[in-house]
Amino acid sequence: MAKVTPRSEDYARWYTDVVQMADLADYAPVRGCMVIKPYGYSLWENIRNSLDWRFKATGHVNAYFPLFIPMSFLEKEAEHVEGFAPELAVVTVGGGKKLEEPLVVRPTSETVIGHMYAKWIQSYRDLPLLINQWANVVRWEMRTRLFLRTMEFLWQEGHTAHATAAEALEETLRILDIYAEVAIEEAAIPVIKGRKSESEKFAGAVTSYTIEAMMGDRRALQAGTSHFLGQNFAQAFDITFLDQNNESQYVWTTSWGMSTRMVGAVIMAHGDDQGLRLPPRLAPIQVVVVPIWRDEGQRATALEAAAQVQAALEPEVRLKVDDRDGLSPGWKFNDWEMRGVPLRVEIGPRDVAQGQVVLARRDKPGREGKSSVPMSGLANAVREMLMTIQADMYRQALAFREAHTRYVDDFEGLREAVADGFAYAWWCGSPACEAKVKEETSATIRCVPLEQEQGAGTCVVCGERAEERAVFSRAY
Amino acid sequence: MAKVTPRSEDYARWYTDVVQMADLADYAPVRGCMVIKPYGYSLWENIRNSLDWRFKATGHVNAYFPLFIPMSFLEKEAEHVEGFAPELAVVTVGGGKKLEEPLVVRPTSETVIGHMYAKWIQSYRDLPLLINQWANVVRWEMRTRLFLRTMEFLWQEGHTAHATAAEALEETLRILDIYAEVAIEEAAIPVIKGRKSESEKFAGAVTSYTIEAMMGDRRALQAGTSHFLGQNFAQAFDITFLDQNNESQYVWTTSWGMSTRMVGAVIMAHGDDQGLRLPPRLAPIQVVVVPIWRDEGQRATALEAAAQVQAALEPEVRLKVDDRDGLSPGWKFNDWEMRGVPLRVEIGPRDVAQGQVVLARRDKPGREGKSSVPMSGLANAVREMLMTIQADMYRQALAFREAHTRYVDDFEGLREAVADGFAYAWWCGSPACEAKVKEETSATIRCVPLEQEQGAGTCVVCGERAEERAVFSRAY
Repeated sequence: MAKVTPRSEDYARWYTDVVQMADLADYAPVRGCMVIKPYGYSLWENIRNSLDWRFKATGHVNAYFPLFIPMSFLEKEAEHVEGFAPELAVVTVGGGKKLEEPLVVRPTSETVIGHMYAKWIQSYRDLPLLINQWANVVRWEMRTRLFLRTMEFLWQEGHTAHATAAEALEETLRILDIYAEVAIEEAAIPVIKGRKSESEKFAGAVTSYTIEAMMGDRRALQAGTSHFLGQNFAQAFDITFLDQNNESQYVWTTSWGMSTRMVGAVIMAHGDDQGLRLPPRLAPIQVVVVPIWRDEGQRATALEAAAQVQAALEPEVRLKVDDRDGLSPGWKFNDWEMRGVPLRVEIGPRDVAQGQVVLARRDKPGREGKSSVPMSGLANAVREMLMTIQADMYRQALAFREAHTRYVDDFEGLREAVADGFAYAWWCGSPACEAKVKEETSATIRCVPLEQEQGAGTCVVCGERAEERAVFSRAY
Repeated sequence: MAKVTPRSEDYARWYTDVVQMADLADYAPVRGCMVIKPYGYSLWENIRNSLDWRFKATGHVNAYFPLFIPMSFLEKEAEHVEGFAPELAVVTVGGGKKLEEPLVVRPTSETVIGHMYAKWIQSYRDLPLLINQWANVVRWEMRTRLFLRTMEFLWQEGHTAHATAAEALEETLRILDIYAEVAIEEAAIPVIKGRKSESEKFAGAVTSYTIEAMMGDRRALQAGTSHFLGQNFAQAFDITFLDQNNESQYVWTTSWGMSTRMVGAVIMAHGDDQGLRLPPRLAPIQVVVVPIWRDEGQRATALEAAAQVQAALEPEVRLKVDDRDGLSPGWKFNDWEMRGVPLRVEIGPRDVAQGQVVLARRDKPGREGKSSVPMSGLANAVREMLMTIQADMYRQALAFREAHTRYVDDFEGLREAVADGFAYAWWCGSPACEAKVKEETSATIRCVPLEQEQGAGTCVVCGERAEERAVFSRAY
């Protein structure tokens, strides 16, 4: 059985190997596009569901806006068009004819949604308007990588309108909390919630917030963003409402998104040299049952025991029985390890005789992750084990991040820290200091964390007074 | 409160009024595109879920293929490109540069999926391959109508590959059964399962199957199609496998789709002059609770009773309490009738005093649809009532179809029948006879029903021997 390139040898190749050998995605015929294979799509469906119910529980509703946006719409918000113009795919021919106005394939939908909101919103009674959309978007990227950066990707994009700045800001941070909760609780990935610097914010936003995670190569990945758009889009698209005093006001808007990039985050936060490792809450298959036999008699007994395990665990547990003929147990073990299934149930002839099965954890290789469990208490044992694996995977990712995070107080310290992982460093807030760090270390400000210690310090670049620490890191 | 145009006055305007006044969809800024509003999208989500679990229960998995297809791919299957070329939207500019090969925005995905299947399928062990995708597609339509025919629409498209023709045909018909089941059981719409004529089949198919429904204006609507593609796409894209004798064979493929058009079918199969009528199984809101009060004291009591109803029915029932101030009960009744909510619970001061509520059915206007139910047995009563409404709506739609369906044996009979609805008429199978009917009556062959009476007859057009009756009708 083919093996993935070890991470220490070539992390980028390791990543591509895992994506392909674990059957998550494949390259599409059009450069920069991907095909999400069934196993990868199922992982995305689980991420999607974990977001969708949280959005609905906080009062949001889903809708669908069009793929094509008139080019003129993008030009209405100056920063927005400047940011997105170089990345656009443009339809110029439709139904065999050249179009009078070219249509942009949406890179994001603030403009077309702004246009509709201007029509739908009349009075304060129409606010807040809390809409989310599940959609594909296209950005013409030159350097692409499966899931992490592809020309077309799937995401959700939320777009809300509010009567006051305070409400819009509260919404922006509520969503940031949902993103952090999904990353932590579902994906078992620790994240830092923070504010983007001016140079890294969304084109058209007043303030962008982000969750940042550390990948296995100690680089940062932006896993979700939530933007406070102020009245920028309201003014560009004339989205106004009559307030309670019957006066016309611009609304305040937000937008926020999480994408199939999150699949890449799961791969890189947890994967190892055996392949993928999936957190139980997101795993398409949580438990694989491998019956083991040497002859036909044992085969029947083992399959019967496997069916009992299946009956005991389904439908609460997402389970697969691997009853394939002609493949050795060892080959099957490797195969499911590659695909990151969190828990394996082995049923050999001796286990059947003793009325037990062997549980083997994906997150703890070898003897340490193995235990025997009597068939009678299996359902409870598996349920608890899956919760333990989920918690342990989070703890392990957190310990890894902490081991590669330093608080630094001067430029040399920063340089050393970003060569190894994350650096928390005082920053005066100036774009010049930010640029200098990038130039000299290729690290960028991932965010200014919302959680800050008391007091102030001196900027690690210029030595001026600094109110906040920023997190610097090399990033995807 | 604004009213919809009566159906008898102008059915097309009635339809557009309902779509807009029931808040289902709106026109997008790009001609021919639509915005699916939250209420309409929620209806689509319910249709989507009702299909998705059935696909999964029959062994299908979801995946995602790219939006952009190289123009050259479409040209590989001659009939396919001929059928779709006039409807294509073409991207010619990406990232600010003119593209060497134009990219087609997918009108359907047989070609790009065929390309991937050629790569993925090696041996008989890889078959059958049963994949579905939820996606948007674009067809450059000149005459568009919300949900029924839009430039961009949402759908699912299934694409399967099999070792034998028999298995592929079995799959094609299995899916047709699922479509019919969703139409009948979920949407309460009777459908005729049948085969498309050569002139109406999918471009590239060997045989297309369809479910056809009768709308409120007695015209037919194709609500879902399932295609047996033979080896057409396998040959065009070189999708081969090694069979058990180690010989290379072309696979046999199918494709099938149901789209947001189904929302239009629900509107037109059930709607009346008060607006939308939704079958309970698909309704975003199944029960609306309207507390009624004249003064503050009554208000508190009514709201308390409404909360009790809510507690008794949720989460099994999708429910909304309409506690809006400043709107009369009558206005609210009309509003929810417009939106097609199947069941209304009215709670007035006298009801509270008597420990009961009034149930009012959307499908039976006036006194006939009203009944008083004691609070104590409410949950059971509502559950049963929703099932009754679902069944009655189906019965009503079926009775309507039967009242406007005739078996005819000559051309004059056909002409009269299609002016009123569906005509079952003997057809010899010749395209010339089919064309003549279309020319003289503007009715087309909707399908040749799978269920046929024994024996043969004579073609209503040419008088030659005919083996089958076809259903003729004017259609959307």
